[in-house]
Amino acid sequence: MKQYITLDPWKIIEDSFNPEHHQITESLMSIGNGRMGQRANNPETYNGDTLKGNYIAGVYYPDKTRVGWWKNGYPEYFAKVLNSLDWVKKEVRIDDQLIDLSTSAITSYKRWLDMQEGILYRDIALQLESGKSVNIHTERFYSIADQDRCFIKYSIKAVDHEINVTITDHLDFNVRNSDSNYDEDFWEDRSQGFQNQYGYISAKTKKTDFLVAASFDSQLIIDDKAIESTKDLSTGEVSHRFNFSLQPNQTAEHVKSVAICSSFYYDKSEVLDKAINQVKDPIHDYSSHKQKHILAWAKRWQSCDIKIAGDVSAQQGIRFNIFQLYQTYSGEDSRLNIGPKGFTGEKYGGSTYWDTEAYCLPFYMSTGSQEIAKNLLIYRHNHLAKAIDNATLLGFEKGAALYPMVTINGEECHNEWEITFEEIHRNGAIAFAIYNYIRYTGDQDYLISHGLDVLIGIARFWAQRVHRSPSTGLYVMMGVTGPNEYENNVDNNWYTNYIARWCLQYTRECIDKIRKNTSDKWTLLKANNSIEETELDRWADIISQLYLPKDEETGLFIQHDGYLDKEDLTVEDLREKDRPINQNWSWDRILRSPFIKQADVLQGLYFFEDHFTKEQIKTNFDYYEPKTVHESSLSPCVHSILASSLGLKDKAYEMYLRTARLDLDNYNNDTEDGCHITSMAGTWMSIVEGFAGMRVRDGRLSFAPVIVDSWDSYSFKINFRGKLLELSVDKARCSINNHSDQPIETAIFDKVLVVEAQEQVSFALQG
Amino acid sequence: MKQYITLDPWKIIEDSFNPEHHQITESLMSIGNGRMGQRANNPETYNGDTLKGNYIAGVYYPDKTRVGWWKNGYPEYFAKVLNSLDWVKKEVRIDDQLIDLSTSAITSYKRWLDMQEGILYRDIALQLESGKSVNIHTERFYSIADQDRCFIKYSIKAVDHEINVTITDHLDFNVRNSDSNYDEDFWEDRSQGFQNQYGYISAKTKKTDFLVAASFDSQLIIDDKAIESTKDLSTGEVSHRFNFSLQPNQTAEHVKSVAICSSFYYDKSEVLDKAINQVKDPIHDYSSHKQKHILAWAKRWQSCDIKIAGDVSAQQGIRFNIFQLYQTYSGEDSRLNIGPKGFTGEKYGGSTYWDTEAYCLPFYMSTGSQEIAKNLLIYRHNHLAKAIDNATLLGFEKGAALYPMVTINGEECHNEWEITFEEIHRNGAIAFAIYNYIRYTGDQDYLISHGLDVLIGIARFWAQRVHRSPSTGLYVMMGVTGPNEYENNVDNNWYTNYIARWCLQYTRECIDKIRKNTSDKWTLLKANNSIEETELDRWADIISQLYLPKDEETGLFIQHDGYLDKEDLTVEDLREKDRPINQNWSWDRILRSPFIKQADVLQGLYFFEDHFTKEQIKTNFDYYEPKTVHESSLSPCVHSILASSLGLKDKAYEMYLRTARLDLDNYNNDTEDGCHITSMAGTWMSIVEGFAGMRVRDGRLSFAPVIVDSWDSYSFKINFRGKLLELSVDKARCSINNHSDQPIETAIFDKVLVVEAQEQVSFALQG
Repeated sequence: MKQYITLDPWKIIEDSFNPEHHQITESLMSIGNGRMGQRANNPETYNGDTLKGNYIAGVYYPDKTRVGWWKNGYPEYFAKVLNSLDWVKKEVRIDDQLIDLSTSAITSYKRWLDMQEGILYRDIALQLESGKSVNIHTERFYSIADQDRCFIKYSIKAVDHEINVTITDHLDFNVRNSDSNYDEDFWEDRSQGFQNQYGYISAKTKKTDFLVAASFDSQLIIDDKAIESTKDLSTGEVSHRFNFSLQPNQTAEHVKSVAICSSFYYDKSEVLDKAINQVKDPIHDYSSHKQKHILAWAKRWQSCDIKIAGDVSAQQGIRFNIFQLYQTYSGEDSRLNIGPKGFTGEKYGGSTYWDTEAYCLPFYMSTGSQEIAKNLLIYRHNHLAKAIDNATLLGFEKGAALYPMVTINGEECHNEWEITFEEIHRNGAIAFAIYNYIRYTGDQDYLISHGLDVLIGIARFWAQRVHRSPSTGLYVMMGVTGPNEYENNVDNNWYTNYIARWCLQYTRECIDKIRKNTSDKWTLLKANNSIEETELDRWADIISQLYLPKDEETGLFIQHDGYLDKEDLTVEDLREKDRPINQNWSWDRILRSPFIKQADVLQGLYFFEDHFTKEQIKTNFDYYEPKTVHESSLSPCVHSILASSLGLKDKAYEMYLRTARLDLDNYNNDTEDGCHITSMAGTWMSIVEGFAGMRVRDGRLSFAPVIVDSWDSYSFKINFRGKLLELSVDKARCSINNHSDQPIETAIFDKVLVVEAQEQVSFALQG
Repeated sequence: MKQYITLDPWKIIEDSFNPEHHQITESLMSIGNGRMGQRANNPETYNGDTLKGNYIAGVYYPDKTRVGWWKNGYPEYFAKVLNSLDWVKKEVRIDDQLIDLSTSAITSYKRWLDMQEGILYRDIALQLESGKSVNIHTERFYSIADQDRCFIKYSIKAVDHEINVTITDHLDFNVRNSDSNYDEDFWEDRSQGFQNQYGYISAKTKKTDFLVAASFDSQLIIDDKAIESTKDLSTGEVSHRFNFSLQPNQTAEHVKSVAICSSFYYDKSEVLDKAINQVKDPIHDYSSHKQKHILAWAKRWQSCDIKIAGDVSAQQGIRFNIFQLYQTYSGEDSRLNIGPKGFTGEKYGGSTYWDTEAYCLPFYMSTGSQEIAKNLLIYRHNHLAKAIDNATLLGFEKGAALYPMVTINGEECHNEWEITFEEIHRNGAIAFAIYNYIRYTGDQDYLISHGLDVLIGIARFWAQRVHRSPSTGLYVMMGVTGPNEYENNVDNNWYTNYIARWCLQYTRECIDKIRKNTSDKWTLLKANNSIEETELDRWADIISQLYLPKDEETGLFIQHDGYLDKEDLTVEDLREKDRPINQNWSWDRILRSPFIKQADVLQGLYFFEDHFTKEQIKTNFDYYEPKTVHESSLSPCVHSILASSLGLKDKAYEMYLRTARLDLDNYNNDTEDGCHITSMAGTWMSIVEGFAGMRVRDGRLSFAPVIVDSWDSYSFKINFRGKLLELSVDKARCSINNHSDQPIETAIFDKVLVVEAQEQVSFALQG
């Protein structure tokens, strides 16, 4: 694909109109504020390729499942993020010509997403059919300062001749999901009206009964004079129509100020009033809203930015990733989570996968706050009862919990047996996140207040999911799919077995500690969870006798039983035309091939690095990396981090490049559906845990930085246990700045040191 | 379920009206003649539960595939048998009351399918709302003597009062498939009209462009006097309306004589004429048509019947199975095959599975003729090019052929990866059928004219599908699903590996023989198939080094790698509420359980019985039988046959009962969708190969009969190489009658003997 996005450290820029990539640009320039967001649809009529998308966090619909062949146990519904009201829509006619970028003569074009400000801009010049010229400037944003608010400013300037203009400015709730399984309209009870000049519309979702209401004010100013509008209503739509003329060089400035409220945040009875009342702010407030919003982004960037000097492409890539993550989820609400496409598309239903725990948590924990990370954990705690129901449905007993592979409300949505029923390692990542959170934050209280409930449910699942092999006497786990989804229904997946054993062990350790130190708490916990001693004994038995496939001779951990019978090929044996194999090979061929989508064993070595020697890690990395095709967006970052830790700088950078600009360069040829939000956290990890080698050990952060050859320097800030520190690395040295008012104990290249409050220490780079 | 079908040796009888089982009865009483058929829908208006079904052989539509998650390589279409015109439909009004059995007062009711005659009868008496009584008699059939023809006679008698009657008699082409994936109408261009009194309709299928036309004559006679009708037309419908009065005891006899022709058999330009011209037969011909039809069935029963004395239930069961098989496929046309539901329902699309080769072929070969069996083989030969295309699509090369799992026209229809792509053992059954046919018929010419083309394509597939394991050095076959569909994506399925090796071996042997004996034919064959010596060498290498999982200690053939790690449970360990497991367990639980849908290894031992010792067979039967839940209709017959051969009479009879009355007693609770046609051949096999121990060895039939304790006697005829012989078995003796004009060499209990023409020999039963 043509690299049509211009490089810039802070902006995503489209310098000329690219209708052939329009849906990709719509994804890339998506904006949002954690509570809602939208794709970068043109505000005017647009008859070219477009995927309309406006989304509101937490508002979903259980779409009836569509499968070819039903399997017992499949969920009946797939909860989907909803395409919601279109608030930017307007119809613009100039001298009776309908403005539509797919047909209009564009003489100048620039669209850019300013990530520093969080604002999407567009400047275009058109030549009308009449030969006259007009310039149009737009800017829009979802305020991160006032999260129900969004704004679009639209300025038209007559360049050379007088023009007559009609702008019809809409809120439009006549929208559908393009991925509806049965072409169903998910919304009903659309209503609309005006309260004084404030137009409003509302609709509710079928079944889930979410109410969404929006209100807007629409003001058009020419030379400081407001133009009167005509007000129109039709089902699900409310609009202002402005008719006016502009003289050469005269500009009309149209500001639409919108509030969108949902019953996810407000009581149903007040949703509409909340929307209208917020819009009743005076319209001249646009610039103050804009300022507040820009300031809020500036503050956010203060702590989460990564600066890279000497490589604009890498700089743009990492900022794009960070920006999209914070647009998607800003962490205030434990009922929300991070969908794989965020607010950039419908695909995958906007649901939560194991990506959150395995990839996103470390990012939010370090760049945001402990509270954000905790909210992500509490999300799963809230869903524990449903995870137990889910396991019960699948034949498990006594409080065993299986978290869904894909969910919005805690119920399983997915319907491919090899994933839904067998990709059970997700339970492991959810347990690991609890451990990881406590390791990072030191928040031991969380274990007793929430963590152990989840750990016990998960441990029980593993304990029932394994059985003792009659032929070997060891515990085995049959019929699973690991993170490497290019293997289905395998026995003894090393990663799954390993994380299962670790879960049982960690849960037992936590229980033992509580039992020993706070016996009253233990008594309560034991009673609440109906824990029996025989159960704990069985866990111990499994821990000591769970089979982990290993080649004793080479020290290789074997991906799963039978993997060594596969042809011994590497990715280099693939022909160009075979790649990506998931677009060129039938599924059986992928399954029986040795090629790996993302490497299970390496994921395990990444999580449990301290359990293994460097040599063990290297043996397995050297074996599995060459077999990995990285056709999961979640794959390259783990390889990058491991490569960094093994001193394989070139490999680490190669893998970094695959993750950092995945969407900007449309590597997977699917960015038109939306951006790969969750894997963006992996990009951050590749720098922070990879190049900078950040780890938490013994309650302190440690670093072991290297620098990519093509970079001059890089730096980032980390919030660790309430203290902000900054790591800066250049060609020769690295330094740690302690921006907090307390000393921080840290380690660089295994040397423990204390950095005093507001002080900096500096070291020469190694190697 | 209530056993509401009355026992009778020749009839399927419903003695009282069972609206709650109406759809089941519609399936059971289906009628057909190999070229077309229908479910036993009531001819009158019926507002109760009903699945309307009229089907025409060979006429299909490629319905757009519906899946939840698309996998690369899935077929875009699923070819479906079509619900076609409804020719029995009529609207009956008596004294202005619409007759509808779902609401009318039924005072007497009997419906029966006379399998000896091949005619469906119904006698009912109704009390009208006016208090008057009427009797209605109907009879209908598809002529097996004139295969485009079908007839229904409908007699109404006024019992006690004068009645006024209106009968509107239709041909109706406004029909849909109830299983259409997107509610699509598969028919178009409906047209209708009259030529003199002969009404006609036609329609063509979208895409596949099959033209179907039907014509009918409708005559109503009262006291030898014909009543005039009014003729009506509307889109896709043509009808005669009769108005008349009947005095008490007076009867109106209405005969509808229909011809249905399709472009599957006739040139499009003549389809309609063919239909009309056939109907122009004088109407008084009904009784001669009926007689011809009954005589044709009598002739057919002559050779295919199995008589069982002392067990009406078993007698009804086996005749029902034989009757349905011959209604479905009568063998004249190599373009047709046997759908799993025949003409009794839409389900499974009317497609061909491996059932034909593995189960149906022996039945038709022995009860019908060599020609029928050959046609079934040629069906696959006709599809060879498409099987090669299919394999090519999946990445195979150089003429490797993979036959579809499910097909109507040679193209794969199915879309579950674990079946479509992995249940490749079907290729083995297709090769085995060639071997089986030649073994039975001695028709060596077939090998050169057709057989080897198919064998070479299949052998090439196997040779490419295996590879040498780098860890063991043996050839392995990874990622398959065996006949036991309760295991997916397993490695080294013993059955599949075994039949693959046998295919390579048999193909090589055939090639070697031709090469040696007829070198000119070999030269041609080699050139036509571009066979290279290196290819044959590779086959030899695979034959000698293909891995077959086996427990050396016990002699157990292991179902697939890892099976012995499963929990060692038997079906007795299952709770009542768990069964059938496919309705109570989620798919993963089924997959990781040791329970078997139909036993792979035993299927292999059945096919290749002579390769193994009785002890080997017994070891494996004793191990696998107790783990088999028989949730495939194809399972019990193989176990019954093996049990017979091992002298396990009780087990053999238990398994026989599961197969013989599967639909009549609705064991699987799904007969409303249609009958399990292909497994019906397994019932026949259970008696002939099981109880009677029939085998073909060294070019002659051999028998080793036993008799079920509850039976007084049983007998059947076998057509072997153009000679008809009959085996009769009673409590004490068995005898063989040679009904042919030539002596037959045969063997009983391993004793070879010659039965002279038209003679009988008799032996005491053993054991």
